Formats: sequence, structure tokens, C-alpha cells
Amino acid sequence: MLHYSLLSLNSIIYLACEKLAKKVGIIARTDREDAISTAAQIISRFEKENFEILLEPSLAELLGRSKSSTPLKKMRTDVIVTIGGDGTILRTCLRIPKPEPPILAVDMGVRGFLTEVAPEEALEAVDKYLKGTYRVEQCSKIASFVGDERLPDALNEVFITSRHLAKLLHARIRKNDEVVMDCRADGVIISSQVGSTGYSFSAGGPIIDMALDAFVLTPVCPITFIRPMVLPSSSEVSVELLMPKNAILVIDGDYQKEIDEENPLVIVKKSEYTSSFIRFGGSFYNRLKARLLFSREEG
Amino acid sequence: MLHYSLLSLNSIIYLACEKLAKKVGIIARTDREDAISTAAQIISRFEKENFEILLEPSLAELLGRSKSSTPLKKMRTDVIVTIGGDGTILRTCLRIPKPEPPILAVDMGVRGFLTEVAPEEALEAVDKYLKGTYRVEQCSKIASFVGDERLPDALNEVFITSRHLAKLLHARIRKNDEVVMDCRADGVIISSQVGSTGYSFSAGGPIIDMALDAFVLTPVCPITFIRPMVLPSSSEVSVELLMPKNAILVIDGDYQKEIDEENPLVIVKKSEYTSSFIRFGGSFYNRLKARLLFSREEG
Amino acid sequence: MLHYSLLSLNSIIYLACEKLAKKVGIIARTDREDAISTAAQIISRFEKENFEILLEPSLAELLGRSKSSTPLKKMRTDVIVTIGGDGTILRTCLRIPKPEPPILAVDMGVRGFLTEVAPEEALEAVDKYLKGTYRVEQCSKIASFVGDERLPDALNEVFITSRHLAKLLHARIRKNDEVVMDCRADGVIISSQVGSTGYSFSAGGPIIDMALDAFVLTPVCPITFIRPMVLPSSSEVSVELLMPKNAILVIDGDYQKEIDEENPLVIVKKSEYTSSFIRFGGSFYNRLKARLLFSREEG
Amino acid sequence: MLHYSLLSLNSIIYLACEKLAKKVGIIARTDREDAISTAAQIISRFEKENFEILLEPSLAELLGRSKSSTPLKKMRTDVIVTIGGDGTILRTCLRIPKPEPPILAVDMGVRGFLTEVAPEEALEAVDKYLKGTYRVEQCSKIASFVGDERLPDALNEVFITSRHLAKLLHARIRKNDEVVMDCRADGVIISSQVGSTGYSFSAGGPIIDMALDAFVLTPVCPITFIRPMVLPSSSEVSVELLMPKNAILVIDGDYQKEIDEENPLVIVKKSEYTSSFIRFGGSFYNRLKARLLFSREEG
Repeated sequence: MLHYSLLSLNSIIYLACEKLAKKVGIIARTDREDAISTAAQIISRFEKENFEILLEPSLAELLGRSKSSTPLKKMRTDVIVTIGGDGTILRTCLRIPKPEPPILAVDMGVRGFLTEVAPEEALEAVDKYLKGTYRVEQCSKIASFVGDERLPDALNEVFITSRHLAKLLHARIRKNDEVVMDCRADGVIISSQVGSTGYSFSAGGPIIDMALDAFVLTPVCPITFIRPMVLPSSSEVSVELLMPKNAILVIDGDYQKEIDEENPLVIVKKSEYTSSFIRFGGSFYNRLKARLLFSREEG
Repeated sequence: MLHYSLLSLNSIIYLACEKLAKKVGIIARTDREDAISTAAQIISRFEKENFEILLEPSLAELLGRSKSSTPLKKMRTDVIVTIGGDGTILRTCLRIPKPEPPILAVDMGVRGFLTEVAPEEALEAVDKYLKGTYRVEQCSKIASFVGDERLPDALNEVFITSRHLAKLLHARIRKNDEVVMDCRADGVIISSQVGSTGYSFSAGGPIIDMALDAFVLTPVCPITFIRPMVLPSSSEVSVELLMPKNAILVIDGDYQKEIDEENPLVIVKKSEYTSSFIRFGGSFYNRLKARLLFSREEG
Repeated sequence: MLHYSLLSLNSIIYLACEKLAKKVGIIARTDREDAISTAAQIISRFEKENFEILLEPSLAELLGRSKSSTPLKKMRTDVIVTIGGDGTILRTCLRIPKPEPPILAVDMGVRGFLTEVAPEEALEAVDKYLKGTYRVEQCSKIASFVGDERLPDALNEVFITSRHLAKLLHARIRKNDEVVMDCRADGVIISSQVGSTGYSFSAGGPIIDMALDAFVLTPVCPITFIRPMVLPSSSEVSVELLMPKNAILVIDGDYQKEIDEENPLVIVKKSEYTSSFIRFGGSFYNRLKARLLFSREEG
Repeated sequence: MLHYSLLSLNSIIYLACEKLAKKVGIIARTDREDAISTAAQIISRFEKENFEILLEPSLAELLGRSKSSTPLKKMRTDVIVTIGGDGTILRTCLRIPKPEPPILAVDMGVRGFLTEVAPEEALEAVDKYLKGTYRVEQCSKIASFVGDERLPDALNEVFITSRHLAKLLHARIRKNDEVVMDCRADGVIISSQVGSTGYSFSAGGPIIDMALDAFVLTPVCPITFIRPMVLPSSSEVSVELLMPKNAILVIDGDYQKEIDEENPLVIVKKSEYTSSFIRFGGSFYNRLKARLLFSREEG
């Protein structure tokens, strides 16, 4: 009992301090004026609530707030607001310190599966966040290793492709120590659940329910008859380059790493970290339907 | 302690009795002479070990062993040997009493993903089985319900299709109570892991690792842009017929049930039962590779 | 010169006579009130221009115009108006006497690739037709033969499928006398250009440009690794049933014919007839985009 | 008349000289010893028949025949022998002077759809060629233009892809002047008939019969719902880069050209040239079946 009371007291003190010191990080597409002006409105709203504002340097400069300028790698905050598309989110999640705070994702982009909030609802969403009327959606991330090096966690996918255009990747893929497939293809995607709606989808992969702890292996333009495969994400997946023994690894369409003969092996596991998103309404399947419709209209 | 000893004693007595009374059920394709002669050889081998032999009536008749004749529905045995293809196995698993004994599957068919043992290795496999040098592979099964009726468990898939050729099924599919997709298609498949290599594969579905507790929803010839989806098999999946409110449900390509306006709703869950297979070597992925190669040569 | 004048005179007389005797056939979905009322409006418009009105019996009855009642098979007219979806058009083209008059297709259905005119534009479209401000789009049709019998021409596709649910069709397909593929599948579609947007599309087939004289062979849920193939429609395509030697042939999702051991061979060629459509604006690719978008919204 | 006679005389003289001076060009994979030794045997055989031998410089060096060394661009011969895989053929056809002589293609590669002759049948094939017991298979080629520049003709395909890994290409594709599709994808392939079995196939495209004068447009990993399309090769296809206005164009997996803002438009037409292959037996569909089987075994 006593122990419990102390704990509660600690919590109250902690929460109080937190309130004084709350920080929000804001990341926006700086190539779109509407994204920048939305950022400015959101900043005002958070300042009213005495949040400390941290801005990506390019945005800070555009808004004349150099004091707020903080690189993504140092952006330790209570919450992040992204104003852009999935690309903005992926770029952010790749770089911010771990564990990641929850992200409120305003949609100003084209490819918006991770985003939820329309630009005109951005302030309302911030208000709901401040009132606590939201839920948090956890998304698994993927850890990958080349030799001794751990690469940044992927939210969507790890993509391994031949280094030269129009040359095939020939790779042997194992689950734990068992050979799952030999893949001769432009490349191979190892996707998370949420990533199953991204590049893996474009390459012909299935949709994976968010509640299923799974990886999808999706070959890209294979010359052999292999199909996407779905594996438990408790397994360790390895991709061994057979010939040639070099390739490029791309994480979330952003981070790139060259792989060569020295370590022609990539190990992929479920990360101990997650990305988390502040959600107000729409479920995974609502967003799925909307996103598919959206990309159709684009086309 | 005492309780434990009694239990052990009981077990020993039980095992001893079992040894005296062991039973094997043998099911073979009766349209193929090689299957029938293989059956005869396997029977001899089991008789030497004092197994009681139970045969499907059609096979019993062909072999002149009417005393052994037992319908599948009453075939309670310690082990089953099937001599045929996947169709023979699926037919057997649909009908034998639950829980099912392990199956030793000799391949005499065309579409052999579930089978493992080549005809010429059949006797050797029986010997290994008798010596206990094998492992057992458990396969999840799917329970389905229409109104108050529970249908036979599926090993591969539950397929719901419009009752009339060239007419569309229009169905709403839910996971628990959430709408996952509206499907306008020739039909929709709900497949198990092992079923992901069967009809679902032909309809464009992904391969699911045996260790992943999942269903695949695979639309067949959809007119809308939907993709196969993979859901946790801990979820309850429902298929509601929208228009027309009738359809045919087919389990494992064999059992058929008409669905009509009275109960235009099918509920699908993971069954409490499994099918189990006696395996000697090849893993899931070995069989997968072999099967794909095999069907290629057929084509 | 003289010759030319005479010809012109003849034309004038001919056109004058035509004017007196012009006939329009009207076919509508009778399960939809909006289709019936649109039919009534279109009838009035044509009557003002002294067209003789021919109606399908069910529509004639609903509109109390039994004198106009004419079965599709006897509906010889100068123009046809269909009010419904692609199904209404396909049903009409299957049955009306050959060669077919041009069709003005009002869209009141769900699956509208062949249709062009929205319901609210129906009267305007009739006016444009009467003024001659339209173009005619010719669509190739497919002739098929079983033994000595010529079946009705297909506008979209000839589909050959196994007679029993969940049983495979095993067929050998030849182009002229060369084996093109052995197909083990639920069925196989031989589609025209325009049919490439219909059932063949749902089964994974490519889109064929209207100007390309081609058939698409699209296997439906094949168990072997075969892909849709595109052949010149100047070739004769044959489908030989290997095992079992029976199947069902379905033309345009409507006409059905059983095929059995007596003649387990279907011959498919380009027909000498075409279907033709009155078009006002949108091209093939506009309709394609719109239709795909439309079916998406449905889903 | 006189003119005609002279011409005939000239032809006769020319043909006579030709007979004396027949030339064979030999191109082999120089990374494989079996290819080099096969080349040596084939050279002997052609020398017995008094052919002049022309060798690619790298092969000439390896065989110590520097006098025969001739770059592909200057290799004007009566016949070409390639010893390798499809890559060797594609590389040759891209570079040799037009019009191209027929090619006798010995298979020493992995991806052999264009090749026909197995290594052990190479000398027999040369003998058949010398006796004239063969047929010639003509394959259409694709001409492409960027601004005023005509690029080398493609035998298999023209592939246009974004310049940066993991960035989308956004392109508008027209047939003559009509918009066919807006494509947001990793890239888009315009394939010939024979190319339909190559990269286009890996990207999900259909197989096109050699006798059908057609292009296939196959999007690679599209984010929108577009499907491969088949167009008459009498049409002019243009690919306009929308955003970004730069890309890389790859012909037959070999020749590369950067496209930028200056001329963000690629025009593609049927070439006036063809590639032609010396064939002894197997038809297109035999090779297709064999190739598919082959690539399966590789995987």
C-alpha cells in the first residue's frame, strides 16, 4: 500500500514537471507553402499551451525562428507533428532519437497511408490531442544488420536491390537457418505490417493486418516463379548475396547503404522499438480504403 | 507424488493395451492401380506389426477384405495412411472423427503439397514410422458456422462463391466487427497457412509460413481493386452476403453447402482441432519448392 | 457526272424512304424504375421523329405498349437503345439479328465499360443521334464452334470452365495447329479487345487497345505457371478438353452450353460480324479510366 | 530493259564475290571457358568453308587471333554466331551495323529465351546452317527518340525509370496523341513481342505472340491501379516525364541514356529494322515452355 502511494505521488510530481516542460517537434514539407503556413498555425496553438517548440532547421529558418532550430537527430520531444505525406513521416522516424514519441500526422502529401488528419482539420486535431481525446496506434519497426553495424530501424521496409540498373540480384533468403527462397530479381523487400501498404503493395504484396506480427518478403520483378511470403516477425530473416556479392540496401525509401563482398549478408529482425501515431477516428481499414481511392485519383 | 505414480502406472497400462490394439486406417485412390497395389504392400507391413487394419469400403472391396471395411466417419485409428494426392488427404481430414490421428501421406497424385513420401519410398516410410523416427507437423484448421450449424473443419480453405456461373458475389467481410473489405468477385477464399499453397495460391494469394497463426483472405477474380489480406487467426472473420443473399460454400474443394437468405452470414474462426502429418525430412519450404516445380512440369 | 447524279438521287430517295420507315429498338433493365422512366422519355423523343418503336416484351408490358412488343431475336431496327449496364448490352448483342445496328448505350448499371451516356444525358444523346453528330465505334466479336454447331458470337469473351465447382479444367490450347499452352485451371477465357476490360481483366489479363486485332487467352486460377497470352485474332484458337472431357462454355456471362465427350473441342475465331456503338465523346481510354474509378468506388 | 539487265548482271557479280568472301562474326561470353572453347570449334568449322572470321576484340585476344579482331560496330557479316545467353544477343543486336545479318544463337547463359541451340549441338547447328536447312525468325525492333536523337533500336524493350533509387517516375503515356495512362511507378517498360518474355514478363506483363504486331506497356511497381496494356506497334507511343523531368532510359538492359528537362519526352515506334534468328526446330511456344521451366529450376 505504502509503496503504491509513493509511486502515485511520484507520478503526480512527474506529470506536473512534465506539464511545465512539454516539448513538441514540428516537421513540415518546406517545398509547399500550405504546409509552412499550417506549421505556423500549429506552432501558435502549442505555444498557447506553453509547449517548447522544436523545429527542423530548414523550417525554423523559413519561419524566422532560429532559436527553435533542432536537427531531427536531437529532437527529443513529447510529441511530434509532421505536416506532409508518408515520406515526411518516414524521414522523421528514421532519424529522431529512440524511443520515439507519438506522431500527429497532418496530410499534405500525395501518398498518405500513414497520415490521417486533413490540413483543414489540423488545428482541431491538435486541440483533441491537447485534451487527450485520442488513441495511440503502435507500429512495429524492423531492425537490420550488416556485419557488426545496426542500421536505422525501418518503419515500412528494408529493400535490397542490385547496385546496377538492369542487373539482377541473386540472393538466398533464410528464415532462422532454413532456406526460404532463392530470389533472382531486381530486388527483394522485407516489409512490416504497415509497410505492406507501401512499396511492397506496389510490387504485388498482400495487405497485412496491423495486429499480425509478421514480415512480408516481396520479390521485385523476379525472373523465377516466386510469390510474396509472409513470415512471423519473431523469426530472423537473412538475405545472403550470392552473385554478385554487392547490392544497395534502402530503408524506407530514404536511407541507403552499400553492401559488398566483405559482408554480403543482411540480417533482419523485429526491432525493440515502435513508431506510434496519434489517431482520432479512422481505423487501419478505413485508411486503407481511402488511400487506395486517393492514389487512384492521382493516376 | 502418489497421484503422479498412479498416473504413470495408468499410462503404462494404457500404452501396453494400445500396443496390442493399434489400428491403422488406409485410404487410397481406387482409380489408380499403383495406388491399390501400394496399399496392399502397406497393409502387409502393418499386419506384421499386429496392427488392426481399417480400410475405406471401396478399397476393402477391391482388395477382397470386407472385414476391414470401415467408413471414414467411423475410422478411429492410431494412424492413417493416405495413398493419393492432396485431394485424398483433404477428403480424409474432412470426414474422420476428431481429434485426428497423424497421417502418413504417400504421394500418388498430381497436386502434392501436403504429401511427402514418393510411392517407391512408401514401405521405407512405414518402417520409419514404426520405429518412431519421424516428426509430426501440426496444421491449423478452420471452423466455419452458418446460423447454428458448425460445418466440417477446413484444412486448406473455406471458399464462398456465387451460386450461378458468371454471376458476381457481393460480400462484406469483417474482422471481429470491423469491415475489412467489400468484395465483388467470383468468390472469396479464407485460407489457412497450409491452404496458402492451394487454391488461394492459384487465385494470387501469398505463401504463409506454417508458424504464423494467420488466415489469408483471397478474392477470386474481383472486379474492384482489392488485394489478398492476411489476418491473425485469433480473429473471427465474417462474410455477409449483400446481394444476392445466396451463395455456395465449398470446404477443401469437397464439402458443399448452400447459403441462402435465411442465414446470409458465414462465421470463420480457428478450429480447436488440427490435422497432423508424419514427416521424415523435407521442410515446408522444400515441399513448396518441389511442388511448384512439379506443377510446372505438368503444365 | 451523270452516274454520280443518279447515285445522289437514289440516295435521296432511299433516305426519304428510310425516314418514313425508321425503327428503334429499346431494351431496359426492368428491375429499376429509373431505367423504365428513362425508357418512356426516350420513346417519346423517337416517336416525335416518327420512328417505329420496338420494345422487349417485358418492357412493353410494363409500359402498356403491347403493340410494340418484339422479342430480341426478331428486333430488326436501325438503331438500338439500351438502358442498363454492360449486362444489358451483352444480353442484347447476343440475341439481336445479325448484322447488328448501332447501339446507343445509356448507363444505369454498375459495371459500365461499354456504356457511355449518363442517365441525365440520355435525351440529349438521343438528340445528337438524330442530328447525326456522333461517331460509331466498331467492336470485334468472337465466333465459337462446338462440333458442327456455331454458337452465338461473343462481344466480350468465351469462357470455358469445368462443370463442377472446385474441379479443375485440364485443356490444351492451340493457335492454328500449334500448342500454345496446357492449362490446368478453374477455366480459361478467350477475350476480345473490348472484353479485355471485363472478366479477363478481373482474372488478371492485360488491357488490349481497340485498334489491335487480338484475342487474350486468360487462365482463371491456374495451378501451373502460365500467364495471359495475346494472339492475333486472325488465328484460329482451339481448346481441347483433356480430362475430364466435359465442361461448360459461357458466352458473355449469359449464354451457356455444355460440352461433353462427343465433341470435347471448342474452336474460336474472329467473327465476320461486329457490334457497334454510338459514341459522342469519350475515347476508349477515357472510359477505361472512368470505369476503373467507378468500380473502385463501388468497392 | 537495259537498265534491268545491268542490274541483274551486277547482282550476279556481287553474289559471286560474296560467295568467295563470306564472313561470319563470332561473339562469345569471355568469362566462361566452355563458351570460348565452343567458339574455337565453331571458328574451325567456318574456316573449312572458307568463311572470313570476325571476332570481338576480347575474344580475338583470348584466342590469339588479333587479325580477326573487329569491334561490334564494324562487324558487317553474312551471319553472326553468339555463344552465351540472351544478354550476349541483346548486346550484339544493339551494336552491329544495320540491317542485321541472321544470328545463330548458342545457349551458354542462364536466361535463354532468344537462344535455341544447346552447347553440345552447336557444331551440328553450324552444319545445318551451312547446308541451308534452317528457317529465319524475324523479330520486330523498337526505335526510340529523345529530341532529335535516335537511340539504338531495342530488341526486347525500352525501359524508362526514375534516376534515383526509391523515387517515383511520374509519366504521361500517349498513343499517337491520346493519353493512355498516367503512370506513377518505379518505371515503365515498352516491350516488343519477343521482349514480352523478358523484363516485361518479370514485371507482370502478358506474353505476346510473335505474329502480332504489338507493343506492351508494362508499369513497374506502380502505386496506382494500372495494368499492362497492349497497343498496335503501328502507333507512336510517347512517354512524357511530368515530375521530376528527368529519368534514365535503358535499352535491352544495356544501353543507358539520361533524360532531362531539356527534352523530357521519349518517342517510341516500330523500327524499320528487325533482328533475325536462325532456327532449326522449336517454335516460340516450345522455347517459351522450356525457358519458363529453366528459370524455375534456377530458382
